[in-house]
Amino acid sequence: MKDLGHGANVEPMARMYNKNPKDIIDFSSNINPNVIQGLEEYILEGLQESRSYPDIKYTNLRNNISQYIDVRPEFIIPGNGATEIIYLLMKSIDKRIAILNPTFSEYERSARLNNLDVINLNLDESNEFEIDLNNIKENINKFDSLFVCNPNNPNGKVKNLEKLLDIIVDNNKLLIVDETFMEFVEEEEKYSLVKYVEKYPNLFILKAVTKFFGLPGIRLGYGLTSNNDIIEKIYNYKEPWTINSFADTLSNYIFKDQKYIEDSKEYYIDERNFMLSELKSINSIHVYDTDTNFILIRLNDKRAKEIKVELLREGNILIRDASNFIGLDDRYIRIAIKSHKENELLIRHMKKLLGD
Amino acid sequence: MKDLGHGANVEPMARMYNKNPKDIIDFSSNINPNVIQGLEEYILEGLQESRSYPDIKYTNLRNNISQYIDVRPEFIIPGNGATEIIYLLMKSIDKRIAILNPTFSEYERSARLNNLDVINLNLDESNEFEIDLNNIKENINKFDSLFVCNPNNPNGKVKNLEKLLDIIVDNNKLLIVDETFMEFVEEEEKYSLVKYVEKYPNLFILKAVTKFFGLPGIRLGYGLTSNNDIIEKIYNYKEPWTINSFADTLSNYIFKDQKYIEDSKEYYIDERNFMLSELKSINSIHVYDTDTNFILIRLNDKRAKEIKVELLREGNILIRDASNFIGLDDRYIRIAIKSHKENELLIRHMKKLLGD
Repeated sequence: MKDLGHGANVEPMARMYNKNPKDIIDFSSNINPNVIQGLEEYILEGLQESRSYPDIKYTNLRNNISQYIDVRPEFIIPGNGATEIIYLLMKSIDKRIAILNPTFSEYERSARLNNLDVINLNLDESNEFEIDLNNIKENINKFDSLFVCNPNNPNGKVKNLEKLLDIIVDNNKLLIVDETFMEFVEEEEKYSLVKYVEKYPNLFILKAVTKFFGLPGIRLGYGLTSNNDIIEKIYNYKEPWTINSFADTLSNYIFKDQKYIEDSKEYYIDERNFMLSELKSINSIHVYDTDTNFILIRLNDKRAKEIKVELLREGNILIRDASNFIGLDDRYIRIAIKSHKENELLIRHMKKLLGD
Repeated sequence: MKDLGHGANVEPMARMYNKNPKDIIDFSSNINPNVIQGLEEYILEGLQESRSYPDIKYTNLRNNISQYIDVRPEFIIPGNGATEIIYLLMKSIDKRIAILNPTFSEYERSARLNNLDVINLNLDESNEFEIDLNNIKENINKFDSLFVCNPNNPNGKVKNLEKLLDIIVDNNKLLIVDETFMEFVEEEEKYSLVKYVEKYPNLFILKAVTKFFGLPGIRLGYGLTSNNDIIEKIYNYKEPWTINSFADTLSNYIFKDQKYIEDSKEYYIDERNFMLSELKSINSIHVYDTDTNFILIRLNDKRAKEIKVELLREGNILIRDASNFIGLDDRYIRIAIKSHKENELLIRHMKKLLGD
C-alpha cells in the first residue's frame, strides 16, 4: 500500500528507530483515551452476534444513532468508519467539489479517485483558520459542493457555520461538513449543524463514532442527509455488510452512556486548558487555539521532521508531522490530547527540546 | 437500502411472519456452526487493540495469512470481507468480464457499478453445473476476465479448474476464482488454485475467512494475485483502515488451529453424506451433489416461494429461495448444512411437506 501520509503509523516508526511498538506513546492520532464502562460484556455479546451476518439494512443500528442525535433513521447512512461514507459520497455528488484547506487528505483523495474536479480553497491561517465567506461567494459558481471539516483537522478550532449554510442554501449548492471531532467541543449544540439536516437537503454531515468513544479499531461512522437523491445514489453503490457485528452491537450501549459522554467533555475542557497554557509558555512555537482533542503548533526555529525524530528518540513519543497538509509547510506539527500523565510527559519533553 | 436479494435476512422475515428473530433457524446463509476454542480471550485482546487504529498496511495480518496458505505476503490483499476485494477488483481489471452463471449476484453488481461490460455465460445445469470448456473457447475473444466461483454458489460441486486455467493462460486472459467455500471441500489441495498464484499473473483468487471459521460478522476476506499491475491498481483505490481490530487480532490464532480446521472438514464430510442421503430419499425433489456446506435442490411439484413460507411458518426454518440466480427459476431452493440437530429438524419438516 502506498503511504497515504496519515498519523498512527506506530509500527513502521518503531521499527525504523529500533523501538518496541508497545512502548510508543502515539500523539499522532486523535483518539479519546477513555472508554465506556462494561465494554467487555458488550463485546462478548457482539461475538455471539458475529456468528451470523449483520442485518443488511442495519435497522437497529440506525435506530440507535437516531435516538442519539435526533435525526430520522432513514436519513442515517451507517459506514465502516466515516471513511466508507466519504468515498460513497464522492460517487454520489455533482462533478465540482471545493475543499477548504488545510484539512484531512482523504477528502481530496476520494474526490479524485471518483473523477471529481477538485477546487482547493484556503482557510485564513492568519485568523485562526477562519472561513473567508467573501472568498466562498466569489467562487460560488465554480463548485457544486463545498467540503468543510468542523472542528477542522489539523487546527481544531470550531466555527459557526450558519452563515456559510445560508450562502450554500441560497445558491442551491451542497454543504458537506465532517463533524468527526464535534463531540469533543464544549458547546456542541451551538456549533453542530445536525439540527438542520431534516430542514435542508443542501446539507450532508459526516460523523465518526469511534474517535470520541475511544475505539477506532471497531470502525463505525455515519452520514446524515435528508437529500433523497444522494441517499439513493449512495445505496446504489453501497457494498453489503460493511459494518461488523461488534460495532452493530455496541450501538445499543455507547450512545446511552450519558455519564461517559459528559465526563469526556469535562475531561477535554480541563485538559485543553492545561495543554494550551503549558504549550503557550514555550516561546519558540505558535500554538493555535483548539476546541477539540488535538493541537496544531507552528515551530519558529525547527523543522517538523526534526522534532518528530527527537521526541521519538528521547521520549518514545510519536507526533504528527503536519507539513503534508495543503497550505501548511515543514514548520507544522499536530499533537493529540491524551491522558493527563501522557500529556505531562509530552510537555516536559517539548520544553526540554524547545526551551521554556 | 434496496433489496440485493441475498439470504440471511432473518429480521425482516421474522417480522413479516410474526416470529421472534431469535427463534428462526437460518438455513439461508452458509456459515460453519462451529467456532475455534478460546475465542472470547482473543476477542478481548482485539478489544484492547481496537483502542488504536489498526496498522494501515496490515503487515501482521498479511503475514498470518501468508503462513496459512503459503503465498508471499505482498501477494495478499486483505479486505473487510471478500466483498471489499470483489469491488476493488472490478475497478482494477480490463473492460470486459465474463461470469459463469448461476452464481453469487455481487459479481455482476460490482462489475456493472464499475462500468464493466458483463457477458453472462452458463454452467451446464444438466451435468452438475459443469464448466463447458468449448463454450469458453468459443467466447474467448469476447472477454478480458472470466469470473468463476469454486465450489460454486448455489450448487456447491467443486470443479477441477486446471484445464480452464491453461486456456486462460494460453490466451493471456485473467481467471478470477472465488474460493470462498473451498475450505469445506474434502480434497481442498487438489482443487484449490492457490498453488498457482505465484506462478501465473493471470490468476486472481478470492477467499472469505469468516464463513469457514463461523464468524461472518467479524468481516475478513482477502484476494491473492502475483499480478503487480492489478495489485497496484487495487491499492490505488483501496480505502484506509477497512479491516477492524478484531479480525486483525484473530488472525494470530484462527489459522493455526489445526484441530478446528480438521474437525470442521471431518464434520462436513459426515454431515454432507447424511443430508444428501436423507434428501435424496425424497422423491419429489432433485438434489444436486455438493462438496461444501450448502445444497441446491430443484422442486418438482412446488414453487420455492411456497416451501420457503411453509418451512418458516411450521418449522421456524428460513431457507434461501434460489429463483433469483441467473439461469435458475422458481423451482430452486438452497439450504445450508448446519448442526446435526438442526439438519435433522430440517429433514423432518421437508419430508413432512414434500413426502418421502
